[in-house]
Amino acid sequence: MKVETFSGRKIETNIADRSFEPYNGAKKYSGSSKVISFEKALQECKIKDGMTLSFHHQLRNGDFVVNLILDAISNMGVKDLRIAQTAFFDVHEPVIEHIKNGVVTRIEGSCNGPVGDYCCKNPLEQPVILRSHGGRWAAVETGELHPNIAFIAASAADIRGNATGLIGSSAFGNIAYSGVDAVKADNVVIVTDNIVDYPCYFRDIYEGLVDYVVEVDKIGDPNKIVSGSLKVTDDSMKLSIARNCVDLMDAAGIVKEGMIFQAGAGGISLAAIKYLGELLNERGIAAGSSTGGLTKYIVDMYHSGCLKQINTCQCFDMESVKFASKHPEFLSTIGEYSNPLAKGRNIDRLSTVVLGATEVDTSFNVNVNTHSDGRMLHGIGGHQDVSTAANLSIMAVPVFRKTNPIVREKVTTISTPGDVVDAIVTNEGIAINPNRKDLIEKIKGKIEIVPIEELKNIAYSETGEPNKPNLGEEIVGITKFMDGTVLDNIYRVLE
Amino acid sequence: MKVETFSGRKIETNIADRSFEPYNGAKKYSGSSKVISFEKALQECKIKDGMTLSFHHQLRNGDFVVNLILDAISNMGVKDLRIAQTAFFDVHEPVIEHIKNGVVTRIEGSCNGPVGDYCCKNPLEQPVILRSHGGRWAAVETGELHPNIAFIAASAADIRGNATGLIGSSAFGNIAYSGVDAVKADNVVIVTDNIVDYPCYFRDIYEGLVDYVVEVDKIGDPNKIVSGSLKVTDDSMKLSIARNCVDLMDAAGIVKEGMIFQAGAGGISLAAIKYLGELLNERGIAAGSSTGGLTKYIVDMYHSGCLKQINTCQCFDMESVKFASKHPEFLSTIGEYSNPLAKGRNIDRLSTVVLGATEVDTSFNVNVNTHSDGRMLHGIGGHQDVSTAANLSIMAVPVFRKTNPIVREKVTTISTPGDVVDAIVTNEGIAINPNRKDLIEKIKGKIEIVPIEELKNIAYSETGEPNKPNLGEEIVGITKFMDGTVLDNIYRVLE
Repeated sequence: MKVETFSGRKIETNIADRSFEPYNGAKKYSGSSKVISFEKALQECKIKDGMTLSFHHQLRNGDFVVNLILDAISNMGVKDLRIAQTAFFDVHEPVIEHIKNGVVTRIEGSCNGPVGDYCCKNPLEQPVILRSHGGRWAAVETGELHPNIAFIAASAADIRGNATGLIGSSAFGNIAYSGVDAVKADNVVIVTDNIVDYPCYFRDIYEGLVDYVVEVDKIGDPNKIVSGSLKVTDDSMKLSIARNCVDLMDAAGIVKEGMIFQAGAGGISLAAIKYLGELLNERGIAAGSSTGGLTKYIVDMYHSGCLKQINTCQCFDMESVKFASKHPEFLSTIGEYSNPLAKGRNIDRLSTVVLGATEVDTSFNVNVNTHSDGRMLHGIGGHQDVSTAANLSIMAVPVFRKTNPIVREKVTTISTPGDVVDAIVTNEGIAINPNRKDLIEKIKGKIEIVPIEELKNIAYSETGEPNKPNLGEEIVGITKFMDGTVLDNIYRVLE
Repeated sequence: MKVETFSGRKIETNIADRSFEPYNGAKKYSGSSKVISFEKALQECKIKDGMTLSFHHQLRNGDFVVNLILDAISNMGVKDLRIAQTAFFDVHEPVIEHIKNGVVTRIEGSCNGPVGDYCCKNPLEQPVILRSHGGRWAAVETGELHPNIAFIAASAADIRGNATGLIGSSAFGNIAYSGVDAVKADNVVIVTDNIVDYPCYFRDIYEGLVDYVVEVDKIGDPNKIVSGSLKVTDDSMKLSIARNCVDLMDAAGIVKEGMIFQAGAGGISLAAIKYLGELLNERGIAAGSSTGGLTKYIVDMYHSGCLKQINTCQCFDMESVKFASKHPEFLSTIGEYSNPLAKGRNIDRLSTVVLGATEVDTSFNVNVNTHSDGRMLHGIGGHQDVSTAANLSIMAVPVFRKTNPIVREKVTTISTPGDVVDAIVTNEGIAINPNRKDLIEKIKGKIEIVPIEELKNIAYSETGEPNKPNLGEEIVGITKFMDGTVLDNIYRVLE
């Protein structure tokens, strides 16, 4: 049957068993500004009790945005919010007041510092849910964690919402964590202190995903991106652990042209990377790439020629921020880095990773979230993601710290399950996961392998049995594996 | 109820009215190579009769990939395929054989050249569906056009599928058209002639979306990216049209600091851009950005300082390819450029665009697909997308060509509807869409406005009434508007 379109054309709408709609007119696009005030943005997003708000943590301890937004929302009288940050730091201590006032009742996101400490002593309505970087990305992708409003801090944005973290005085690196929130959230609000000429380039979030742009005085203090701990250890015991890590890599045949590595930001991991760089340079070979959080130590390796490429999604210091803005070709999103739902991830070809832990146990389980007294103080990060992916995942820890045994019978909380952990490298020797018969075979005769039980015994002989934490029955937190299953419960700390 | 996880931990699975799954073990990731042979890839993708295959056209007339793949599939005896290319060129003439043999029975994608010519004379099982760049992206996003296998030509890729068009001897610009295919297709196959060290940087398609990587001798000849027409016209009549375009822009108050413009790749459009650049330089001001296909003329403007940024998603010559690989910060996907489903697009802030046409009519409708004899010879491109978006969309055409009136009562095929076209600029004067009262008001007294009917009359007085094309009853093609509705039917050309 022929029908007339808006243009007056008579067209057939049923052809070869398919039916079509006739053209019905168009309006010209406007491309108008999306910049509005904070209050107006919250109104337009129809903010209300019970909603889920998401944030990224890339300004780390220098972030102003979470506090700014929660204060504004609190002033509007909105309650019962679920906060889906990618991590909290010391700077987010004011969140505790919002918990006390009923503004925040649920948290699903990594908790570093005072908020975690508060929540493990004062249970929220629901347990805090701790997901790895990749696990969180997947949970937002599947809808398990659905943000109603994604607030995305950007160091530069244009009036249409193209946004980046790479340029401007508050630059913090590419916006790597928020891509999936931008796609999935009902509303997306860019929060920036730097409106630039359209179109903002180096855009990590593009205008097609953005509803509103809000300008604030300052999104944060990038000088506080760097944490106090970000330096190579000068403790000789820790340096010996770092040396052991590199010896193990070498014995395993991993130190070779094109190797891909990652290191955590702890002092031992950084020292191990330094030693690895020295070894590569000594042999005149180059690693193919690094992955994960970027530090000046990795940038130095790149410049020294022993590292061909960098693949990063997070900057841990200002040197890295500067490097990232000059090398957009090296930047990834967390989705690219570690989304377990993808057909491949940047970390899947990791030769080795050196990570820290608060505790490890004789089943090779690793705790990075709680202290041995049960307090929830540390971020979960990408620890389990990279451990699962790396051909040789190394946990670098002293067997005990002060009076607390680090290698122990059972970790207080499982953050990374023992079945994906390959080696525990300590100041008293190296234990290899008995599942990794191939690895044991490879290093036999080159590295002395110490049974994990023996490392535990050495620890206990120095410290005695671990103190039993004073915990209640209430579950205050959950650690999830990246596939969405539960690794462990975290119990209330009694004071 | 407490259950034991794979790690032996007893956990509660029902907490605060939510139920959770216990951890069930993990396997280490392998990160193995995805490189397999062509035949194996097709087998693994379970290629079979009736499937839809997608391709991008960014190697343009230098593309080898479509022919290579269709030959291979044809040899396997597979039939009844739907081809969802983003465009065909002369080089794709061998597709006609596959149509004759029943390998290809349906085509949904832009048809430049011999395949279009064949299909308008020899109807396929279903009409060819012509969608604009943005309209195609949206159709794949919604599932209206679902590729079973996306074959993505890449000038460099690593063994895990990270892929780009920016580096290597077959570089053609960033892979801008295939992003949505990569997300939505059942299987994604990267076809490359250049396997690079992992991880491939400048990646436009990332490994998380890729199933297989196939290495071939040569994906194409990038020297044939440039079409013969890509030069500024030296015809004085056409130069006067180009001059008229810039005069109109200036009268409309558009030639100012920060303006955003686009131009088609035809000789008149390129000349208009050249004049625009001269005017900007003369006044010491700079355009904010260009959008759309990149040519050396726009690169020259950037280098001359009268254009602050470039925003592009397609390279039309080798100078642009070289420029793009040095300026990844300026590159967009078609989704960013013109996806009508997005909350904003790069083109939405276009001040003006200068485009060509095969015909225009007194209702301001534009034909870019068929000749006046009905033959389907030209791509639909982003013509309607940018016309809808630009504040001042200009069609630059002579009133007639040889004996054929270009300005006419009714275009043979509507590619872009008249309600989004603002001005028709010819060698005999400028017509403004009467809907644009604001524009008419602005230019009054500065530019003589000629009624569109008068331009038609001038044409007819030179050429006589248009020849009636010799068309049959069968519908061989459909032009769609970017929202999925049908603008027009294309009828069989009788020989």
